[in-house]
Amino acid sequence: MDDEGTLMLGKMIIAVEGIEECEEFAGLIPEVRTNLVYAREVARTREDVLAVDGRITVVDGRPRAAGWVKFGSSSHMARLVLEVRKVDPSVRAGIDFAWTPRLWRWLEGYCRERRWVVSVIDRRGEPEEIREGEGASMPWKVAEAVRAAGGKVPKIFYETGAIGKEPVTVLVGHDPIEVSDQACEIARGYHGAG
Amino acid sequence: MDDEGTLMLGKMIIAVEGIEECEEFAGLIPEVRTNLVYAREVARTREDVLAVDGRITVVDGRPRAAGWVKFGSSSHMARLVLEVRKVDPSVRAGIDFAWTPRLWRWLEGYCRERRWVVSVIDRRGEPEEIREGEGASMPWKVAEAVRAAGGKVPKIFYETGAIGKEPVTVLVGHDPIEVSDQACEIARGYHGAG
Amino acid sequence: MDDEGTLMLGKMIIAVEGIEECEEFAGLIPEVRTNLVYAREVARTREDVLAVDGRITVVDGRPRAAGWVKFGSSSHMARLVLEVRKVDPSVRAGIDFAWTPRLWRWLEGYCRERRWVVSVIDRRGEPEEIREGEGASMPWKVAEAVRAAGGKVPKIFYETGAIGKEPVTVLVGHDPIEVSDQACEIARGYHGAG
Amino acid sequence: MDDEGTLMLGKMIIAVEGIEECEEFAGLIPEVRTNLVYAREVARTREDVLAVDGRITVVDGRPRAAGWVKFGSSSHMARLVLEVRKVDPSVRAGIDFAWTPRLWRWLEGYCRERRWVVSVIDRRGEPEEIREGEGASMPWKVAEAVRAAGGKVPKIFYETGAIGKEPVTVLVGHDPIEVSDQACEIARGYHGAG
Repeated sequence: MDDEGTLMLGKMIIAVEGIEECEEFAGLIPEVRTNLVYAREVARTREDVLAVDGRITVVDGRPRAAGWVKFGSSSHMARLVLEVRKVDPSVRAGIDFAWTPRLWRWLEGYCRERRWVVSVIDRRGEPEEIREGEGASMPWKVAEAVRAAGGKVPKIFYETGAIGKEPVTVLVGHDPIEVSDQACEIARGYHGAG
Repeated sequence: MDDEGTLMLGKMIIAVEGIEECEEFAGLIPEVRTNLVYAREVARTREDVLAVDGRITVVDGRPRAAGWVKFGSSSHMARLVLEVRKVDPSVRAGIDFAWTPRLWRWLEGYCRERRWVVSVIDRRGEPEEIREGEGASMPWKVAEAVRAAGGKVPKIFYETGAIGKEPVTVLVGHDPIEVSDQACEIARGYHGAG
Repeated sequence: MDDEGTLMLGKMIIAVEGIEECEEFAGLIPEVRTNLVYAREVARTREDVLAVDGRITVVDGRPRAAGWVKFGSSSHMARLVLEVRKVDPSVRAGIDFAWTPRLWRWLEGYCRERRWVVSVIDRRGEPEEIREGEGASMPWKVAEAVRAAGGKVPKIFYETGAIGKEPVTVLVGHDPIEVSDQACEIARGYHGAG
Repeated sequence: MDDEGTLMLGKMIIAVEGIEECEEFAGLIPEVRTNLVYAREVARTREDVLAVDGRITVVDGRPRAAGWVKFGSSSHMARLVLEVRKVDPSVRAGIDFAWTPRLWRWLEGYCRERRWVVSVIDRRGEPEEIREGEGASMPWKVAEAVRAAGGKVPKIFYETGAIGKEPVTVLVGHDPIEVSDQACEIARGYHGAG
């Protein structure tokens, strides 16, 4: 493993342990579970993206990583971050968590206070020829998130209206520790607001 | 724990180990992961249903139970089996796994050979007032699966067309070991057909 | 699996979860870790004895079973219980935990109150021809524990003075749930006495 | 976490995954389990030493880390490496594994080929006033290992003759990945020689 990869592994461990210690985050883990991803500075394929093998699930009421962190172990979130980076290469990390109308209303206020750009991907607007293949959808989805945010890469976004797909909230950032800290702060804030 | 519960725990352990040892089943674990549930002979609420805490996920390319088996640790699959039992009380166990058009075509042939009843729940036919609450949907869904199967509880069924819900295949039976064995046989058969 | 084995698996799950939920027991897990074993009513070899695969270790300050419960997964504790059963066949379960002079002094008072027989195996008295093979030692050790207890199978005993062997306390009983409950009560009592 | 700590975490993950993937190493895991430790460049207490929380145990016949890697989670191996570093500060990592007379005979030949210095700590020579406290023993033990190796820090050593302590082999090096690779090579070589 090269030095960049080794340092990335270290950061991911810290980030994942942060999630595991945040009991409130268990309430935000969706049916499809959470993944946390981290792309190399120069990243082309999912093999250049670190993720949690088996994702992060809820065991005994607490978040728990199912396996170790590994390059290539995510498909969906890895491709999402790779696509976002085409617009803003400073984005290297991302996490997904549950979406509900109530959480989103709360998040809109939360993001406004922090001047974080939010966005929504309404998949009902997706051209049918794109909707077919998962591979074809990702570029359209990220382009749509950026378009709906007025040309900027949003900090937080979700997609809605897809048949057969659970809606999830996505948060992106520069670093998995930053992204993990922000996700935990959201979990605690939302839990406290409950 | 009463004797029935203790014996149920033992059967579930055997059933879950069967899944863990079936490497081919990893290919059938959906995004929302697999659960395996087992209801008491007299079961009213999810607390009467045994399930895998944290569900069964894929780690290192193999199925792995995230936690122990516990009463009350499933919501969705527990409610599904409780509802099916209102029509056929001999059903006490169930498992869910991935659904794809290709798998379903293969499964239809597989079930025909075994004279297993199959069914489909087309949620586009679901009345809007029911679709709102998850709790309201389950009775409708099971009734629809039975109706579409000509009045019988199907052995295998899936639901289609739901916004925000990954389609999954459901297999029910009398006992978690039976259900686990059948699911593994399907996984191996489908893998071999690949 | 036969019915006896299935019921045994269920009892073991309950017993192991009891240990995992007893945080104070983490303080009693020895360097060699804890195992909990449960023998069939008619048991001849270790394959007839259920145990925790990988034993019970301390993770994050709490007891955690490393793997599932399996027949044949213990050697030492399985052979110990098989040997005890030759004297008292009503013994079917056993657990081992840490031994320190301070714990033992406390345990002696604890056992006196409950009229539990205690015993010590002083391996410095072991004939050299027996000491060689592990297999040869076990019958001698159990015979010595019974002899030192005045002819009775002790409820709690430990062995001392062995080169290369960590001293551990052993508690035996009829059932793994009984044995797990008693071990947890000891852990909590001793912790409170701290 | 500072950069040094983060990079160390990354190296430890790689090293631990190496052990987990080496099935033959399962045969070398002692009763007290294996730990792998890695000290900071400037290290004074065990809090400066990274280790596997819950150590590495055998589950399903394969080595498995019980928990994550954490600073401060080892006592014995951490103190050992800290003590060795007083003689040779280039040593920063260490691993322990099983010891048997047969393995040691094989290891002596293995080390001779590599010109690795080996040593033995015979605890029967330990002054009684030192033997009492574990804390007091470590400086004596490391000094004895160095003395018996003619003044050099040995690459591989073990201690013998201690009452209540399982003998384990210790291998030290500069880096946890080096140490993990060397331990796995030994495991495979010894397995092949079996």
